[in-house]
Amino acid sequence: MSDQTLEIMTATHHKTKPDPETLEFGKTFTDHMFIMDYTNENGWHSPRIIPYQPLTLDPAAMIYHYGQTVFEGLKAYRTDDDRVLLFRPEQNFKRLNLSSDRLSIPDIDTDIVLDYLNELVKLDKEWIPTYEGTSLYIRPFIIATEPNLSVAPSASYKFMIILSPVGSYYKEGIAPVGIYVEDEYTRAALGGTGMAKTAGNYSAAYKAQDKATAHGQAQVLWLDSSEKKYIEEVGSMNVFFKIDGEIVTPALSGSILEGITRKSIIELLKSWDLPVSERKISIDEVLLAIQENRLEEAFGTGTAAVISPIGELSWKGEQSLINNRETGPLAARLYETLTGIQKGRIEDSLNWTYEVK
Amino acid sequence: MSDQTLEIMTATHHKTKPDPETLEFGKTFTDHMFIMDYTNENGWHSPRIIPYQPLTLDPAAMIYHYGQTVFEGLKAYRTDDDRVLLFRPEQNFKRLNLSSDRLSIPDIDTDIVLDYLNELVKLDKEWIPTYEGTSLYIRPFIIATEPNLSVAPSASYKFMIILSPVGSYYKEGIAPVGIYVEDEYTRAALGGTGMAKTAGNYSAAYKAQDKATAHGQAQVLWLDSSEKKYIEEVGSMNVFFKIDGEIVTPALSGSILEGITRKSIIELLKSWDLPVSERKISIDEVLLAIQENRLEEAFGTGTAAVISPIGELSWKGEQSLINNRETGPLAARLYETLTGIQKGRIEDSLNWTYEVK
Ligand SMILES: Cc1ncc(COP(=O)(O)O)c(C=O)c1O
Ligand SMILES: Cc1ncc(COP(=O)(O)O)c(C=O)c1O
Repeated sequence: MSDQTLEIMTATHHKTKPDPETLEFGKTFTDHMFIMDYTNENGWHSPRIIPYQPLTLDPAAMIYHYGQTVFEGLKAYRTDDDRVLLFRPEQNFKRLNLSSDRLSIPDIDTDIVLDYLNELVKLDKEWIPTYEGTSLYIRPFIIATEPNLSVAPSASYKFMIILSPVGSYYKEGIAPVGIYVEDEYTRAALGGTGMAKTAGNYSAAYKAQDKATAHGQAQVLWLDSSEKKYIEEVGSMNVFFKIDGEIVTPALSGSILEGITRKSIIELLKSWDLPVSERKISIDEVLLAIQENRLEEAFGTGTAAVISPIGELSWKGEQSLINNRETGPLAARLYETLTGIQKGRIEDSLNWTYEVK
Repeated sequence: MSDQTLEIMTATHHKTKPDPETLEFGKTFTDHMFIMDYTNENGWHSPRIIPYQPLTLDPAAMIYHYGQTVFEGLKAYRTDDDRVLLFRPEQNFKRLNLSSDRLSIPDIDTDIVLDYLNELVKLDKEWIPTYEGTSLYIRPFIIATEPNLSVAPSASYKFMIILSPVGSYYKEGIAPVGIYVEDEYTRAALGGTGMAKTAGNYSAAYKAQDKATAHGQAQVLWLDSSEKKYIEEVGSMNVFFKIDGEIVTPALSGSILEGITRKSIIELLKSWDLPVSERKISIDEVLLAIQENRLEEAFGTGTAAVISPIGELSWKGEQSLINNRETGPLAARLYETLTGIQKGRIEDSLNWTYEVK
């Protein structure tokens, strides 16, 4: 057997599947996981699907010390006629390679890895919940494993994929949230790692999330690190505003993650002949538009919630309502269209879904 | 036995100690390690010294996904009369707590942890090399261990200390290096994690280090992220310049790590009645001082090298020599004094050393 042939070791014991009605995000994992290894001598090798199990690493493994790691997040959906669809998975693996490049991690062959993912999801198909709004969250990630305290790229890595059945993001239907405009903490700076999906970006945001929560808001609105003026993202989502009929999302500045939901929305809006711009948008422009009743809608976008309408904005101690705290028609249409395509209920004219076979 | 009493399980097998003449940094580890656990219910508990061994964690452990982790680095030195000295270890544990605060990690009791470290170093005392310039590198670190893909602080952590005998940083005596002024990549931004010793800061710097190497320079000189104008650090070191008799180091801006070597040097210089300033210093000021022959010396400072003289600076394709690529008298005096105190050869009048007993 070649070093590149997928080996499959199935679990002898099958875990009990969780109740789909009370599913929490990211706490339950399926029966199997995918793993492959990288060494400078042999490249990526020994791809295998094995029973879900703990990982054993030297305490000096570089992941524990210097954070050389990247990840992705996507979902598998079960259709009404029991097929399994992934949403633009090749985009996730392309983005994984972009992230890896920033973190000096060797890239993967996106086509081959998609085949491996196909086999893994097929094997754990019964774990994809069918309950409305539920799905199987897929987490590919790469970690540096060389036991070495030198501050330098690792000579060895592991690429893994784990799967977690997740509940509906909106238990009581899509509902607007409040956001807190953060003007002290920084998510990412120009020349930093903001455009990469890498671990350090996320824990660095916990303090700001605490502040948002303390101010009674659900999410953080991040401004650019240098002037604290231009809007970047909301929590771990990209963000869109509809002002005077124009649909605006911050242009990719180098410190913004290029969301696949964002990209898909831009493509959808264009296909609908609606005016969409990727450009700089300042917090002042948004506040003025709110004041003058020209801000029609605002929403975050990402794999977890798909669309998260923004109903309130808190800035320097003042709260402003957006669209009377209601989900706007554009957010609703985008949500219905994207989830419809993902669930195979709407024609996939843009060729976004990948069927697991 | 209480949950806070240190348990010691000694190794039955002792590894062969490496040749002190060919020791590399951070690749060999001693016979034992320290570990304790944290849970939200029980706080830090079960401190234990165990044989050095791999760590087994769920692949969903938060350290692998969101980088919630902090670390420290200090050294144990063996004196000529066979005592073991640590250099200001309480400062490292204080800084660990500062880093933890930024990363939403629970803090540790610095006094108790220093007692645990004392026991660990005592047990592995024979691993401290005696060869000139060698020492035992100590790496305390905390990692988030909860298996959960939610982007939020972990409910459980592990604190560990591993030990690694390290060779002399200067095999052929202290020698100046070249630095490359980086104007594209950012180490840390205001409101980011630069003042914390956390994993993500380090792997984010590999791309810039590659550029420095490609330009034939040993280290990166980091500028502030916003204006790319003010000097922050050199590689993973703080930096000092002597200009017109004034000894200048960048003021702690929020994105600079407060080095214990830096702090000690400032205290030493003051005790010597030499003029030292913590202030903003721009790359333009340094370049002008070089041109006008007013830059007397420049050097990096940190636990690894103690003092690393800077002999050359590369900026926008132009190279400038500093002090004719020689180690200046101030760098030499600081190096001799600090390493003398660390090795117990010079009177420790500032009360910096901690004897392992
Ligand atoms: C920081 C950040 N921004 C935006 C997004 C949205 O990206 P996507 O639409 O690909 O899920 C994510 C990931 O979900 C993210 O982590
Ligand atoms: C980013 C950074 N700056 C500066 C230093 C110097 O700190 P210290 O003198 O405490 O070793 C370190 C650690 O060594 C570091 O990681």
